[in-house]
Amino acid sequence: MKRLLPLFFFLFLFLLSHFPFSAPSLSRTPHSLASFSSKPDRPRARSGPVYETRYFRQGLDHFGFDPSLPSFEQRYLVGPAGGWAPGGPIFFYCGNEGDIEWFAENTGFVWEVAPRFSALVVFAEHRYYGESMPYGSKEKAYKNAKSMSYLTTEQALADFAILLTDLKQNLSSKGSPVVLFGGSYGGMLAAWMRLKYPHVAIGALASSAPILQFEDITPFDTFYDIVSNDFKRESISCFEAIKESWDALEAQGQKHDGLVSLTEKFRLCRELNNTEQLSDWLNSAYSYLAMVDYPYPSGFLMPLPAYPIKEVCRQIDSHPNGTSVLDRIFSGVSIYYNYTGSVKCFDLDDDPHGMSGWDWQACTEMVMPMSSSRKNSMFPPYVFDYAAYEDQCIKNYGVKPRPRWVTTEFGGHDIRTVLKKFGSNIIFSNGLLDPWSGGSVLQNISDSIPALVTELGAHHIDLRASTDEDPQWLVEQRKTEIKLIKGWIDDYYEERRASCII
Amino acid sequence: MKRLLPLFFFLFLFLLSHFPFSAPSLSRTPHSLASFSSKPDRPRARSGPVYETRYFRQGLDHFGFDPSLPSFEQRYLVGPAGGWAPGGPIFFYCGNEGDIEWFAENTGFVWEVAPRFSALVVFAEHRYYGESMPYGSKEKAYKNAKSMSYLTTEQALADFAILLTDLKQNLSSKGSPVVLFGGSYGGMLAAWMRLKYPHVAIGALASSAPILQFEDITPFDTFYDIVSNDFKRESISCFEAIKESWDALEAQGQKHDGLVSLTEKFRLCRELNNTEQLSDWLNSAYSYLAMVDYPYPSGFLMPLPAYPIKEVCRQIDSHPNGTSVLDRIFSGVSIYYNYTGSVKCFDLDDDPHGMSGWDWQACTEMVMPMSSSRKNSMFPPYVFDYAAYEDQCIKNYGVKPRPRWVTTEFGGHDIRTVLKKFGSNIIFSNGLLDPWSGGSVLQNISDSIPALVTELGAHHIDLRASTDEDPQWLVEQRKTEIKLIKGWIDDYYEERRASCII
Repeated sequence: MKRLLPLFFFLFLFLLSHFPFSAPSLSRTPHSLASFSSKPDRPRARSGPVYETRYFRQGLDHFGFDPSLPSFEQRYLVGPAGGWAPGGPIFFYCGNEGDIEWFAENTGFVWEVAPRFSALVVFAEHRYYGESMPYGSKEKAYKNAKSMSYLTTEQALADFAILLTDLKQNLSSKGSPVVLFGGSYGGMLAAWMRLKYPHVAIGALASSAPILQFEDITPFDTFYDIVSNDFKRESISCFEAIKESWDALEAQGQKHDGLVSLTEKFRLCRELNNTEQLSDWLNSAYSYLAMVDYPYPSGFLMPLPAYPIKEVCRQIDSHPNGTSVLDRIFSGVSIYYNYTGSVKCFDLDDDPHGMSGWDWQACTEMVMPMSSSRKNSMFPPYVFDYAAYEDQCIKNYGVKPRPRWVTTEFGGHDIRTVLKKFGSNIIFSNGLLDPWSGGSVLQNISDSIPALVTELGAHHIDLRASTDEDPQWLVEQRKTEIKLIKGWIDDYYEERRASCII
Repeated sequence: MKRLLPLFFFLFLFLLSHFPFSAPSLSRTPHSLASFSSKPDRPRARSGPVYETRYFRQGLDHFGFDPSLPSFEQRYLVGPAGGWAPGGPIFFYCGNEGDIEWFAENTGFVWEVAPRFSALVVFAEHRYYGESMPYGSKEKAYKNAKSMSYLTTEQALADFAILLTDLKQNLSSKGSPVVLFGGSYGGMLAAWMRLKYPHVAIGALASSAPILQFEDITPFDTFYDIVSNDFKRESISCFEAIKESWDALEAQGQKHDGLVSLTEKFRLCRELNNTEQLSDWLNSAYSYLAMVDYPYPSGFLMPLPAYPIKEVCRQIDSHPNGTSVLDRIFSGVSIYYNYTGSVKCFDLDDDPHGMSGWDWQACTEMVMPMSSSRKNSMFPPYVFDYAAYEDQCIKNYGVKPRPRWVTTEFGGHDIRTVLKKFGSNIIFSNGLLDPWSGGSVLQNISDSIPALVTELGAHHIDLRASTDEDPQWLVEQRKTEIKLIKGWIDDYYEERRASCII
């Protein structure tokens, strides 16, 4: 069974590792990865992706010319070309921090919509992920800071620009309009790529793209406040139970044989070494639940029922008076970790591969400060401590993060003023249940840079394949997106006709 | 006496080296550099620059995280702060391929205009030039392809973005509007910086910026056709004399003792080894003359009279019938190389330092293909030969150029379609006498990306200090530029007030 790494797993685990009770541990990687489903998640999906796998030779450093650096093969998926003719639109997914096949399988919207536009679909893998590994293997690529040095967002965007330019040339399609798609970090890439390479792509659908989750732009508390609110809106008693569970867990852990009893209570495969491991595991569940709080059953990260938070809270709330808070919590998170009921025991072990690509990115460019507020959060209070964060990065990778670099390179401050008369054709789509929405663009910047916000949407739900159970607001959201994209493409061809280019 | 390297010297010499009779010689550097004036050129200038010199520590690789790379000190000049208050405008000159003091001294427009806007003036030096040398010295920085690897345009732009962001922060001026200025390669930097970093700068005046002189965008013949036309418009017989001189020179060189007689005829300090050296020297003169064909006496590259091409042609045409074409040519180029009459003999020697920064840039990113047409050019016919170009770069530096990279990274193809609804606040100013105008933006792209074209302007004349002899069209051009810049700044403050940011 392939061990695929979900879209926002890194995004989140890294944060968690900085989060609660004790010293941050940057190298922590996902719990229970092995139990994740690698199957494409398309319950009732209307069509599945059909593609060809290809490889493109990329330079390792697009912004330098050290001749001793090797090149590498970037993987990309192409399909379906039915109906597409040279010069026709290209829909390009900006691969994020994981195996590109996994994104291709979980981004049904692009595949479903492409035929309407007779568009060619391309999913490009991000360097240092999946099979797109410099130095021949993950082991060699992830060896040390020197070998990982070129795992940066700017290099990845340049990969995309070069790949697209070459592809268009080879397909006799220099004039093809390219529309970018991306979700989560991939959405950030799509938005930034449209801003940095307007000559390569005519527009971008950036779904759940937290491009404002940097430096001091978004209040540090926002992410965990949203997770907490997602629970509170389902049930105040559920929220309160989770909130009080952390102290109960700590107290239990400090008892004689407390870790043993926690190990039993939570049916863990191996004995706990400390309560932090367990609280990380619980944190993960709550935050992921907030992200995938979809209105229909899904299996993106885990097999889950529709509106899974409602179900978790129903479990937590359904116990008779007197049931301990830890028992209640356990029955709740079991919805997340064991909805099918088939898991015998839970494995909290670290990922054996250690360094993950996103952890490196978080230790270099992707510094997203987060705290947990005493007031609104159901998580233990935590104040983001940059000094500790930096120390940990130096310790783990021998690199100092550049926490101000993303805003220098890509902007973010006063984004409305900056982009109101600059740039065009970017859709920022967000669902307010998604904790990443807090660091995203939620207000229209201009007529051509709109924000599509859905109250009940979760993490890039619009990019998923349509299902028979899609609520009306989701159907409408996708319709708006299609209409906007159609407008870009029509305008593009019209402009070229007017300029006598075609 | 300081040996300052003029703005477009590298830009041009590199091309020349690819140009005529025999194999290209990439490492050739300017002739007669020693005889150049290093004094600021401000005949009748109304005011001179007063500035403070400062240094800012920069990372060597902004797009990678190899911890073994050193940082370096970037030099920048700041002044005059009179009238400026925190939050006020910053006028930022994007330093090009040379010593920043030289640019500061030869860009009087910025210094003259700043006080009207109560603007702080900053001139930032380009990495690997002047004092902004990585690895501690030019010798070490220019040692080999590995040490030169980070001499790229993208790294230089990132230097500027980081410097500006830091400067604004330190001056309590995060909200300061930044206006970029640049001429020639510096103008390319200014335009690209506005496109890539709209959050750092609100607009750019890109003067004589040949951003379209790449790949297949501009016909290869254009540059030399314009130089040739500049001579033709003054005098057809002058143009014809130059055109026929190349064969005469070759024929003379092939005679017994021909090189000796050429050495005498052209009053060279050392004996010629081949005619190519001499033709390079002549080429330089004609092309530079086209660039600095200013309407008033100037001393930017050489002390010259007003409209120097007119003067050169007057010399070439003024000889009695029967004077040899080589004698006529010599009297013409003497206007360029020896207007003061003080030069005893001419030194064609290569620059002893060998590798120049621009030669490296031309061998990596800045590949500007040029040919000389049989039809319109007064230069010997030459067809751009990329294979030979590449071979020479590999031989000289051990690097392969990336001739398509600039258009992938910065665009250029179909620029009007691409930028019509993207980007804003860039002025492309050009004078049509300037051979670089052929690869520049000469048509308005949009209301906010206008092209200011003057028929009689030469290389970034608008950026020079005003003089009492400025023709009316130049006075008008600068007025328009000032009005546009004022509009950007007013809009910016208005927008911020409306958004309640200030």
